[in-house]
Amino acid sequence: MNVSVLGCGRWGTFLAWYANRVDHNVMLWGRENSRNFNGLNLTRKNDYLSLPDGIELTSSLEGALSFAEVIIISISAQELRTFANRLSQYDEIHGKTFILCMKGIESTTGKRLTQVFREEVGKNSNVAVWVGPGHVQDFIRNIPNCMVIGSENIEVTKQIAKAFNSELIRFYYGQDLIGNEIGAATKNVMGIAAGMLDGLKYSSLKGSLMARGTREISRLIRAMGGNDLTIYGLSHLGDYEATLFSAHSHNRKFGQAFVEGKPFDKLAEGVSTIKALKELSEQYNVELPICNALFEILYEHKNAKDTLEELILRPIKFEF
Amino acid sequence: MNVSVLGCGRWGTFLAWYANRVDHNVMLWGRENSRNFNGLNLTRKNDYLSLPDGIELTSSLEGALSFAEVIIISISAQELRTFANRLSQYDEIHGKTFILCMKGIESTTGKRLTQVFREEVGKNSNVAVWVGPGHVQDFIRNIPNCMVIGSENIEVTKQIAKAFNSELIRFYYGQDLIGNEIGAATKNVMGIAAGMLDGLKYSSLKGSLMARGTREISRLIRAMGGNDLTIYGLSHLGDYEATLFSAHSHNRKFGQAFVEGKPFDKLAEGVSTIKALKELSEQYNVELPICNALFEILYEHKNAKDTLEELILRPIKFEF
Repeated sequence: MNVSVLGCGRWGTFLAWYANRVDHNVMLWGRENSRNFNGLNLTRKNDYLSLPDGIELTSSLEGALSFAEVIIISISAQELRTFANRLSQYDEIHGKTFILCMKGIESTTGKRLTQVFREEVGKNSNVAVWVGPGHVQDFIRNIPNCMVIGSENIEVTKQIAKAFNSELIRFYYGQDLIGNEIGAATKNVMGIAAGMLDGLKYSSLKGSLMARGTREISRLIRAMGGNDLTIYGLSHLGDYEATLFSAHSHNRKFGQAFVEGKPFDKLAEGVSTIKALKELSEQYNVELPICNALFEILYEHKNAKDTLEELILRPIKFEF
Repeated sequence: MNVSVLGCGRWGTFLAWYANRVDHNVMLWGRENSRNFNGLNLTRKNDYLSLPDGIELTSSLEGALSFAEVIIISISAQELRTFANRLSQYDEIHGKTFILCMKGIESTTGKRLTQVFREEVGKNSNVAVWVGPGHVQDFIRNIPNCMVIGSENIEVTKQIAKAFNSELIRFYYGQDLIGNEIGAATKNVMGIAAGMLDGLKYSSLKGSLMARGTREISRLIRAMGGNDLTIYGLSHLGDYEATLFSAHSHNRKFGQAFVEGKPFDKLAEGVSTIKALKELSEQYNVELPICNALFEILYEHKNAKDTLEELILRPIKFEF
């Protein structure tokens, strides 16, 4: 199968490497003159891996779109609307299957990424999400994991899972697109909270964070029309090892650096998601105490230690 | 309030220390000539803490029972039946409240610890469980956590939570005794699985383990008459940080040592729980793939790496 990957950051470049490994013909697109694209163009490698010869690197979006039947998008979630609008101007997108490999919610609207994509691109293409645990650093060392493909159409889900399944990534069929998208985006938020607890030397409170964080997002997903168990599957809880405990997690590291007052220059997508959750909390009238505490810390400059202690050490009460 | 703690291992000794800290009069009982009791008797400290002067150490069971209104039991779960039978021979137990601070299921019968206690002691005493996350090593360094009190009687639950609540341990009221007991016991089982993954250099699979482990135990609890969400609360998921990720966890360390072929001399309660789960899986006709794989590894000498890989990397399928 011909597969294009749009976006050549850490994850996009890995996905091109992986698609090549499972025997697809692969084109990897990046923005001309972007730092990632220039680096790959010059050396055919990044900090994590080397591109196999079979992968064609291009900066022609039209070329990448016309080449492939399946098109993977891996860019910053907040840039998806602008990018999808740009895609909508190409006839080559019709009838193709797009897979969104990113985790976020549009911060200004609270919209899920497949919603944003549909609004810009319309109904003539398929759209799916590919979420769940796994770090580039582990996969390239041949350490396997389980991930999820979700879409509105189970046949599309099955086709994608079949095309990309391997001993390295074992796919499950997502059964709740709302839950999978919200779950994938919000695990970054819990990652930021976990990093803050680490930075405050409260790592042992990450257990309570897991129990109570899943709970509040579960309530939100149910209010949005999804299944209240999805949060406990691979897209969210299954990603906690990678996000709340791993040394590789950008969001966890961001949270830790934030409370330690240290600089941090990588993208922590959870920061925008926290803003989106404020919006969703109001739209759906669901209380999200942890997400709201993080909003107050990051956007309203409340003291992190005081705010998190108050959150965790609230008076005795019923658990559910 | 007068409180006795029966059992002077790591956790029992901590509970005596904690009960003293929250201003109760405390008696700590241990078996005469046991290693832990002798050590405390000689030095008034163990590897973790020093006993404050206010705590009376005794080897008289009758004395400890007659002294207190609330009696905490912290011994090996598999010894509870014999011990409870011994308690039943004292008139001093009537009308008192017993709190079981241990995590296990009777391996030969699949019975929960409050069931075992009731069968031996009868209905004339109250019985509750105190479960949830928290390591002695963290508490004595003043790092707080949230825990759960559960019983068949909400008034008893509330009294205990009120008597022991503090800034160091914030209590929630358990609402599902079956779920809290099974959840607390089985988190040790997932701890052993996590240790095996760590030992096999598959730590990043602990995310999938969390998602799928909670799922199968949730099905069991539901079959047993409990609530299928309880597993995602403090008694199980909330204890995953301490059990699946902490360097202090005996069960995690046991699993790691097992696959590395190294000796390990501490009690790993999860080993007996795995046997109990085999029993419960048959009694309630619920498939428990992870627990069963661990049973095969520990009791039927199947290869850990092959068995766990096969478990994780099963064919593509629906997640729920």
